[in-house]
Amino acid sequence: MRVNLMNIWIVLNETRYPENIGAAARACCNMGITRLAVVCPRRLDRSRILKMATHEASHIVENMLLFGDLKEALSDFNFVVGTTARTGRHRLPTHGPRQLARTVAPISQTNKVALLFGSENSGLTNKHLEMCQAIVTIPTAGFSSINLAQSVMILCYEMFCARPETVKSEPKLATLYELEGMYQHLSEMFGAVGLVNPQHPSYWLNMTRRFLGRYHLKSKEVRLIRGLCRQILRTLSCAKQEGF
Amino acid sequence: MRVNLMNIWIVLNETRYPENIGAAARACCNMGITRLAVVCPRRLDRSRILKMATHEASHIVENMLLFGDLKEALSDFNFVVGTTARTGRHRLPTHGPRQLARTVAPISQTNKVALLFGSENSGLTNKHLEMCQAIVTIPTAGFSSINLAQSVMILCYEMFCARPETVKSEPKLATLYELEGMYQHLSEMFGAVGLVNPQHPSYWLNMTRRFLGRYHLKSKEVRLIRGLCRQILRTLSCAKQEGF
Repeated sequence: MRVNLMNIWIVLNETRYPENIGAAARACCNMGITRLAVVCPRRLDRSRILKMATHEASHIVENMLLFGDLKEALSDFNFVVGTTARTGRHRLPTHGPRQLARTVAPISQTNKVALLFGSENSGLTNKHLEMCQAIVTIPTAGFSSINLAQSVMILCYEMFCARPETVKSEPKLATLYELEGMYQHLSEMFGAVGLVNPQHPSYWLNMTRRFLGRYHLKSKEVRLIRGLCRQILRTLSCAKQEGF
Repeated sequence: MRVNLMNIWIVLNETRYPENIGAAARACCNMGITRLAVVCPRRLDRSRILKMATHEASHIVENMLLFGDLKEALSDFNFVVGTTARTGRHRLPTHGPRQLARTVAPISQTNKVALLFGSENSGLTNKHLEMCQAIVTIPTAGFSSINLAQSVMILCYEMFCARPETVKSEPKLATLYELEGMYQHLSEMFGAVGLVNPQHPSYWLNMTRRFLGRYHLKSKEVRLIRGLCRQILRTLSCAKQEGF
């Protein structure tokens, strides 16, 4: 079985150099990935992009999606993978590119997957990584700053070479939009039950993100959690009204 | 056991764009390969090379070797791998990058290995591939023309990730210089014994290259073959003198 590359998107956030967008498009094309999205690029010079993309990858550039906001760009993805050179203290499972390809292969059969890359100079921030379900770090010999389009190439190459070990595909997962709605709801509920540390107002929410982020939640499960939040909020509201 | 990357050289033949030399140097640096050689580059603009190499890889550019002839550049290598997008009728074993890394890993423990890349527009010609002991082709989804520095990155990445399965390293192999001397000697011997097809003067030599090219000849074996050639030539010369 081959990996369904039609569900794999390369998402470039705040890219500085149009050449890197073009070179990324060419790398995608080499490896059979056709979906490219750019979010808040610093410059979007089409001629400089197309020059590096070469004629063969121009269709990827033509069909490339442009967003003004990362959360909006990722909202209908079911699985978001953040690329970072900073190893260490992440709340999420960190993979090498080969291991990632094996993890993503069954998920991508039925789910929309984003491979997210940060800007050339600063990469992805912790805030960006909060929107991800997994992290990938390309191993290096020490000098860990890899050219953006070359990072794209390594991940595309590993996705193209991946052969899922089982035919079993993962079920449809919740989208980022659904997940963020759930966290919003949880946050409201935490506030209502007094789980707010004045020193760290988002302490409980961050802990919950860390905990739930490890699982690949399905839409059904997200609805279950939101149902619980709604019920708690409703009960509290009634109790307060009765108390008056 | 890690692969001995100190014996791995990236050799770029007839590169057109200085930026690609710089980007290749950066990729090498990311993956712990420090040896770079360029042969007949069309332009050798140091500032354009260094800009793409970044400061961290500048030592690789400073120590880069420059050659005016490919045969000279390769003369003291024991194992030369040619990179080509053209799959098919090669006389040599063709590997994917991962398989190549596994093959090269034990060889590189005691032998000097060149990963050879052709120019951006035409790649390596058959004449260049004749100097190689193995061929590597990066798998693609159809559009097989990969940016030069990205090809370098994929091979460097696979070399860096390779873990030889056995600790056994291959013995010291003959250098290209020794091999070419042997073929020269064989050619002379073929001429002397009348193995020259007037339509295809190099027919027998090409057949022998194809045959011996499959093996990793050691210096000792090359000397053995040359000794045989010498003896045949000497015997023929004596027989002719006696005949007069």
